[in-house]
Amino acid sequence: MADANNVEQYLLRPIGIVRSSLKRLEDCPKQNQDGAADAWVEIDPTFTEGLECLTPGCKVILITWLHKACRNVLRVHPRGNPDAPLCGVFATRSPDRPNPLGLHRVEVLEIKEKGLFRIRALEVLDGTPVIDIKPGISGSD
Amino acid sequence: MADANNVEQYLLRPIGIVRSSLKRLEDCPKQNQDGAADAWVEIDPTFTEGLECLTPGCKVILITWLHKACRNVLRVHPRGNPDAPLCGVFATRSPDRPNPLGLHRVEVLEIKEKGLFRIRALEVLDGTPVIDIKPGISGSD
Repeated sequence: MADANNVEQYLLRPIGIVRSSLKRLEDCPKQNQDGAADAWVEIDPTFTEGLECLTPGCKVILITWLHKACRNVLRVHPRGNPDAPLCGVFATRSPDRPNPLGLHRVEVLEIKEKGLFRIRALEVLDGTPVIDIKPGISGSD
Repeated sequence: MADANNVEQYLLRPIGIVRSSLKRLEDCPKQNQDGAADAWVEIDPTFTEGLECLTPGCKVILITWLHKACRNVLRVHPRGNPDAPLCGVFATRSPDRPNPLGLHRVEVLEIKEKGLFRIRALEVLDGTPVIDIKPGISGSD
């Protein structure tokens, strides 16, 4: 990149918000296998048309904006373990990173009304902005 | 959400850029299984410290900003097939969506110098901004 000061920036607009029983950062598990709570996703009325064809049972990738993260962190101790050697944030799942996006593989359990649906096992804080929802990811394992 | 006009917005700053032989949108396959090219990722010097611990052979999720996408589209024909019924964009992998993030599961093939690495099979256009890199995704299949 020729000049870091000339890099274009992009504006993200949240499409919705997470409603969860996890009210404090210290209550949030590091990964959703670690005992995350079921949660509700509330989509802004402007964007509910984009949910058509999503039904209970669908497995989707929810993309969140981890709004409590530190954006100027480039190296961390993985999983917050001070005994683990420092690693670059792009080699870890740390929420602290330049663009704090969270990727979460979740199952749609219930659609209550237009724009409100319940998902299984999400490890993020109540009030976390939702940025995108996708049925999968390109590439292969 | 109480008032859509009061929703906070967030500024994304690209951490790097894709260098690829795919120079025109019409050359890009819909998914990287469909014959995508190997590509280089060039990380801005500001962020290269965040790559520490990434090595050849690592499988990562590259998150891009699909800067040619339409952000006001909420329903599409899946895979651009006009015979397929319209679906909400959040139930498809269409690049057209309110926040046009691309998720790509790729393998790091070669690290040439600080901030420059080659990956296998990426379906996006040369010049596509890179937003984040993660070693995996939370949740289970």
